[in-house]
Amino acid sequence: MKIRVYYEDTDTGGVVYHSNYLNFCERARSDAFFKKDMTPVLQNGHFVARKLEADYVTSAKLGDILDITTELTQMKAASFILCQTIYRDNKKIFSLSITLAYITFEGKPQKIDVDTNDLILSLFDV
Amino acid sequence: MKIRVYYEDTDTGGVVYHSNYLNFCERARSDAFFKKDMTPVLQNGHFVARKLEADYVTSAKLGDILDITTELTQMKAASFILCQTIYRDNKKIFSLSITLAYITFEGKPQKIDVDTNDLILSLFDV
Amino acid sequence: MKIRVYYEDTDTGGVVYHSNYLNFCERARSDAFFKKDMTPVLQNGHFVARKLEADYVTSAKLGDILDITTELTQMKAASFILCQTIYRDNKKIFSLSITLAYITFEGKPQKIDVDTNDLILSLFDV
Amino acid sequence: MKIRVYYEDTDTGGVVYHSNYLNFCERARSDAFFKKDMTPVLQNGHFVARKLEADYVTSAKLGDILDITTELTQMKAASFILCQTIYRDNKKIFSLSITLAYITFEGKPQKIDVDTNDLILSLFDV
Repeated sequence: MKIRVYYEDTDTGGVVYHSNYLNFCERARSDAFFKKDMTPVLQNGHFVARKLEADYVTSAKLGDILDITTELTQMKAASFILCQTIYRDNKKIFSLSITLAYITFEGKPQKIDVDTNDLILSLFDV
Repeated sequence: MKIRVYYEDTDTGGVVYHSNYLNFCERARSDAFFKKDMTPVLQNGHFVARKLEADYVTSAKLGDILDITTELTQMKAASFILCQTIYRDNKKIFSLSITLAYITFEGKPQKIDVDTNDLILSLFDV
Repeated sequence: MKIRVYYEDTDTGGVVYHSNYLNFCERARSDAFFKKDMTPVLQNGHFVARKLEADYVTSAKLGDILDITTELTQMKAASFILCQTIYRDNKKIFSLSITLAYITFEGKPQKIDVDTNDLILSLFDV
Repeated sequence: MKIRVYYEDTDTGGVVYHSNYLNFCERARSDAFFKKDMTPVLQNGHFVARKLEADYVTSAKLGDILDITTELTQMKAASFILCQTIYRDNKKIFSLSITLAYITFEGKPQKIDVDTNDLILSLFDV
């Protein structure tokens, strides 16, 4: 997935505001659904960020074109972990490890059912 | 209502990103509810921006403290108009006229019922 | 220009947050530069929003693909006016008229020089 | 520091968008400067996020009032680590450990000079 950096993504420091890299990664996660003509809004629950670790290597600037890769690194009973990396000109500028937990619409953690498990496996590269 | 300008509000041009002044005004509208221990989420429908006119006088910068005033300028059958002004050090830097239309949860325009009309009148200065 | 609606663009009302349509329009303005391998950051000054009028017709939702058109409607000595329209499935959902004023790096209004005038004319459809 | 959750902070999932908790924490860091009538824009360089770890415990919703605490957990030669926690009604809903690296205006890592070191120590609780 390619993302262009616009004014809204930057701050007065002249570079992309630190939390917006997380937004870019979220777009890539949603795009995995959109590419299959699906929506990230599921029937039996939804996934929320439970934990994340981010490494900032270099800053992106207005006009930059960024590439994002997303890899499924672990599938658990009630969550899964993705490793997402942002590149500019093939150089890594940011990486994220994010744990997404499956919860009910009331916000309770729940086990990932078989269909949802298969869906996740089909959406992301291992 | 006072608002501090943070990094997230600015862009690489060194000033507040143009659409964020609208966010500041929205905070002031919601605050009218919060100050009365109410929520802007209503029972019978909700208000959405239908039309707005904005004038940008001077730019705000990181660290600025802004004051926002909100005035009800017109009450209509299915909408109302607010005039909101942002000041820095008592000088106007931005003004907004916004028409908020009342719609059903299905998104259809609807007349403002008496209770909601009274609520709006009680929330905003005329 | 096509824009996909992501989670970050929406709010708890279930639709795109009202000021984000302005962001989408800004992306389209910057894209006019990027498409010509140029940057919207100019040599002798920059353009800032001076005035805008926005009409909201229908709300966009998560996953929507939006089209944005941009048209130059007026060229003035120190500013120009663009009319931008956002469509979903060929139906207009939002329109914006925005006056962009040319200012010096110190923030003073200035006349648009001939080169910049020609640039603007070359970037946007009339 | 107290923060109110507004529409702009939420997404269509009905809760605060995951990266906005980082924005809230950034506001608290900048506020440490503002409270002393200082600006986070320094003379000899600036601090950028180098690494962060975030834990999401519970979601915040529109209208929530959040408290943020900030604690300096480690001072290094060229960076420092803050632990920031967001509470709602005295219950922890989010925590962040963020490493802020000192860089030159050209973006190179640099040692934290004595004055800047003292400043950091004076701004944040240990």
